[in-house]
Amino acid sequence: MPIKAYGAHAADKPLQPLDIERRAPGPRDVQIEIAYCGICHSDLHTVRSEWAGTRYPCVPGHEIVGHVSAVGAEVTGFEVGDAVGVGCMVDSCRRCPSCAEGLEQYCENGFVGTYNGRTADPPGHTLGGYSQRIVVDERFVLRIRHPAAQLAAVAPLLCAGITTYSPLRHWKVGPGRKVGIVGIGGLGHMGIKLARAMGAHVVAFTTSEHKRQDAHALGAHEAVVSRDAAAMARHARSFDFILDTVAASHDLDAFTALLGRDGTLCLVGVPEHPHPSPSVATLVFGRRSIAGSLIGGIRETQEMLDFCAEHGIVADIELIAAGQINEAYERMLRSDVKYRFVIDAATLAA
Amino acid sequence: MPIKAYGAHAADKPLQPLDIERRAPGPRDVQIEIAYCGICHSDLHTVRSEWAGTRYPCVPGHEIVGHVSAVGAEVTGFEVGDAVGVGCMVDSCRRCPSCAEGLEQYCENGFVGTYNGRTADPPGHTLGGYSQRIVVDERFVLRIRHPAAQLAAVAPLLCAGITTYSPLRHWKVGPGRKVGIVGIGGLGHMGIKLARAMGAHVVAFTTSEHKRQDAHALGAHEAVVSRDAAAMARHARSFDFILDTVAASHDLDAFTALLGRDGTLCLVGVPEHPHPSPSVATLVFGRRSIAGSLIGGIRETQEMLDFCAEHGIVADIELIAAGQINEAYERMLRSDVKYRFVIDAATLAA
Repeated sequence: MPIKAYGAHAADKPLQPLDIERRAPGPRDVQIEIAYCGICHSDLHTVRSEWAGTRYPCVPGHEIVGHVSAVGAEVTGFEVGDAVGVGCMVDSCRRCPSCAEGLEQYCENGFVGTYNGRTADPPGHTLGGYSQRIVVDERFVLRIRHPAAQLAAVAPLLCAGITTYSPLRHWKVGPGRKVGIVGIGGLGHMGIKLARAMGAHVVAFTTSEHKRQDAHALGAHEAVVSRDAAAMARHARSFDFILDTVAASHDLDAFTALLGRDGTLCLVGVPEHPHPSPSVATLVFGRRSIAGSLIGGIRETQEMLDFCAEHGIVADIELIAAGQINEAYERMLRSDVKYRFVIDAATLAA
Repeated sequence: MPIKAYGAHAADKPLQPLDIERRAPGPRDVQIEIAYCGICHSDLHTVRSEWAGTRYPCVPGHEIVGHVSAVGAEVTGFEVGDAVGVGCMVDSCRRCPSCAEGLEQYCENGFVGTYNGRTADPPGHTLGGYSQRIVVDERFVLRIRHPAAQLAAVAPLLCAGITTYSPLRHWKVGPGRKVGIVGIGGLGHMGIKLARAMGAHVVAFTTSEHKRQDAHALGAHEAVVSRDAAAMARHARSFDFILDTVAASHDLDAFTALLGRDGTLCLVGVPEHPHPSPSVATLVFGRRSIAGSLIGGIRETQEMLDFCAEHGIVADIELIAAGQINEAYERMLRSDVKYRFVIDAATLAA
């Protein structure tokens, strides 16, 4: 039985209504009626084939929330009616060391993405959350404990939330630590909220003077305009950790120079054009590191959702109808969103 | 009373015999009759003013070994006749957090280099180990426990040894860990010996087919010619840690791609021209890091010397007379040394 979705038939085509199929739930599957799906920059890159290997038709979306409508006979963790989420992954090899450690995002045989991943289901690649329904192995389904009224704003936690939460935890952000968040967008605004809730001293960096107020409202203790050299210099050698959420090519030295000894600059965005080559001297004279981090594992994603529920954290969102997706992409390219678009899946039926 | 030294009066002048002065030992000072001094690539960079800020006359040398000939009234750790060493530092601020932790190399007010550092002694900057004698605060003097016959070959441990030992320890190299050493030169040959003695599985990387045999002789379990793409590919995603000792600009991605999840590529050489900008995707898809490391603290340098004495580790050296220093520099630029030149300070009197 076909369901409604929104996607594209080619890199140079806008997204449009599509009919797609979902498999009948197998013994370990959870069938989810999608309520909301966030729009991530990766959706745009993939649907426009800006990264290699997009398969068409392409239905993006990996910030999925909804309710269970059916479960397979062997499913033990979920019941019909449960509020649940699905993030960037719907499967992995389950046997490599990374999978065994619950770090499926680093699966050594490649995890199966929620869209554009390989699957036996038709059409041979996975179709994402811009759709009415999805069927996922229960191991990749997350439980949502937020109040029901917050469900739409929970959606972005499934990618933007975990992508910032995981490195903040991995590098032990917490009380007594000074943490920078570079970029106040979909990822950065979550990074500010999460780092603050973890108890760190949080400094937000932005290129936009007008985002300073927003940074404070989101929970930053300080906000610095990174083009202001004097303001930057006042923070020299003082950070334990800086999370850089900016995917556009930029000067990393401006931030490594703000790290104290043994500090880490962690990148979560992959630039289309390389960053200027970072200064090795700045790394050497301070035993500093530049690292990368990719989303988070399933276990950690559940931990993040529970942490957010406990601390009342959701994303700041703008709810849109499916028919506004193409326009939302254009606005996202202009950074004209505070801070995440979320599609109301009820509008797919229209 | 003047002593003999070897140094340069200007960036474009060869090194030549000089007469210099040393202060009379103060209450906390140790006066050392220098027996041998290693030649480090930094010596050449400084004396030729390839780095900013060289002060002339310049007497290089920070791989110093010798014997105590006098001690100040308050010196408690050393006696006349002791075999001792001096490395890259002769002082630091002693009050910043890094100094308090015994990490004087990261002194937040700048450590005093053994040469070209600021000092109240004439001529206003420190003069290094290409000389007959040096006077150093006892806090920056190291004890040497190797057999006397090995003294010349101990000298390079004071820079090449600690520069490789410190990151190997910091990143917890030991049994069960797979470690790469990039470059088989003054630093790299020490890195191989030290990583092997620490119990790791050691893979040496070289651009020179003819250095493969040497790598095995130095203790590497495997040697890989880094231009051999197939050989490199066989090690993909398998290293816990790679120590990169090559200061010339080169492709870092070739090595970050060999790191396993959470692996670190540590750079100890600062290139004159930047490396090609490293791939962010390779960092992100594996939570890998690129880090830097600078020599080591005084406490750790003593630990390294004791570790080397216990394991019978010294550098592979070619002993030269002072009159051969300029020629040695030219040979060093051609990598025509296995693996460190050491000056016999007895030849300074000639």
